[in-house]
Amino acid sequence: MLEQLRIHIEKIVPLTDEEFGIVSSLFSFRKYKKHQFLVQEGEAVAYHYFVLKGLLKLVYTDESGKEHIVGFAMEDWWETDFQAYYTQTKATMFLQCVEATEVLCLSLPDYRKLCTELPKLEHFFLEKAYMGFIAAQQRIISTMTTEIKDRYKQLLEKYPTLVQRVPKSLLAAYLGVSRETLSRLPL
Amino acid sequence: MLEQLRIHIEKIVPLTDEEFGIVSSLFSFRKYKKHQFLVQEGEAVAYHYFVLKGLLKLVYTDESGKEHIVGFAMEDWWETDFQAYYTQTKATMFLQCVEATEVLCLSLPDYRKLCTELPKLEHFFLEKAYMGFIAAQQRIISTMTTEIKDRYKQLLEKYPTLVQRVPKSLLAAYLGVSRETLSRLPL
Repeated sequence: MLEQLRIHIEKIVPLTDEEFGIVSSLFSFRKYKKHQFLVQEGEAVAYHYFVLKGLLKLVYTDESGKEHIVGFAMEDWWETDFQAYYTQTKATMFLQCVEATEVLCLSLPDYRKLCTELPKLEHFFLEKAYMGFIAAQQRIISTMTTEIKDRYKQLLEKYPTLVQRVPKSLLAAYLGVSRETLSRLPL
Repeated sequence: MLEQLRIHIEKIVPLTDEEFGIVSSLFSFRKYKKHQFLVQEGEAVAYHYFVLKGLLKLVYTDESGKEHIVGFAMEDWWETDFQAYYTQTKATMFLQCVEATEVLCLSLPDYRKLCTELPKLEHFFLEKAYMGFIAAQQRIISTMTTEIKDRYKQLLEKYPTLVQRVPKSLLAAYLGVSRETLSRLPL
């Protein structure tokens, strides 16, 4: 399972066996059942998660109790309540398994240790951060300018596997429409 | 003017005079008048801009020609069509002066050179990228869950100087409402 992380990192930064030894010593493995929580709203966020297998949803609950899906994460994606993790504040979102999920966990002290011992890993995380920022900005633009029908199509084109695996009610909560509206779309 | 960049970087990463010599050799200074464009939609994006003085708007124009404000940038902020810059594709947005603006420009080859010669700058850019990602994610959540009235209040609390300097019509385009709706808000 650590091999999957190595392949993932080496798409951006090559590692010697010794370097990967340092990387792997800092991640811990965890396994969760469907519906289990990795992050709970209001609690501290101990880890950034690298998904080995499974599917997660990152959810913001508004004051009326309605759930809004901020993001999904499946194989080879990184996910957490990043603001809470990085600024060491309480979670404002929850992260929950949509499917049974296996992850590798990285704590913030171990992330800092990793970057100190292997500065080239900062290059890897920088690339990931840029891609995350670009994706978030694209989503802002899409929300401002694109009709639901076209946003669903864009999602389908960009992440075909994800759309197949995610229940329609969750896709609706991601797109910000009701389940009924989503099923009435001419697709 | 380079001193302003040094103070900005040293909030995150300390630099020796020699190191700052490398940094300053890679930035170029430019001055723009009000309404001038730094990035034009459909063209290549040569630079990432550090704002020394002034105010910029980053705008996405939809198919009907309506302008949507993706972001603003003022003193000490970084701005560009980042996707186009970083992936070397054509701009999908434009970046224009709301006020007369002075910037320091960093090309992608010079950015890469900077990170190769001074790997600790990757730590600086990583911190900036995380903050950008967190801000974008907060904006997504706010758009999904918060009423315009409260989003305007949040903006005012977070960026009081910005809100004072930006014309109301641009604030409306940022919040995604008409100028009339914005002025009818009970503030």
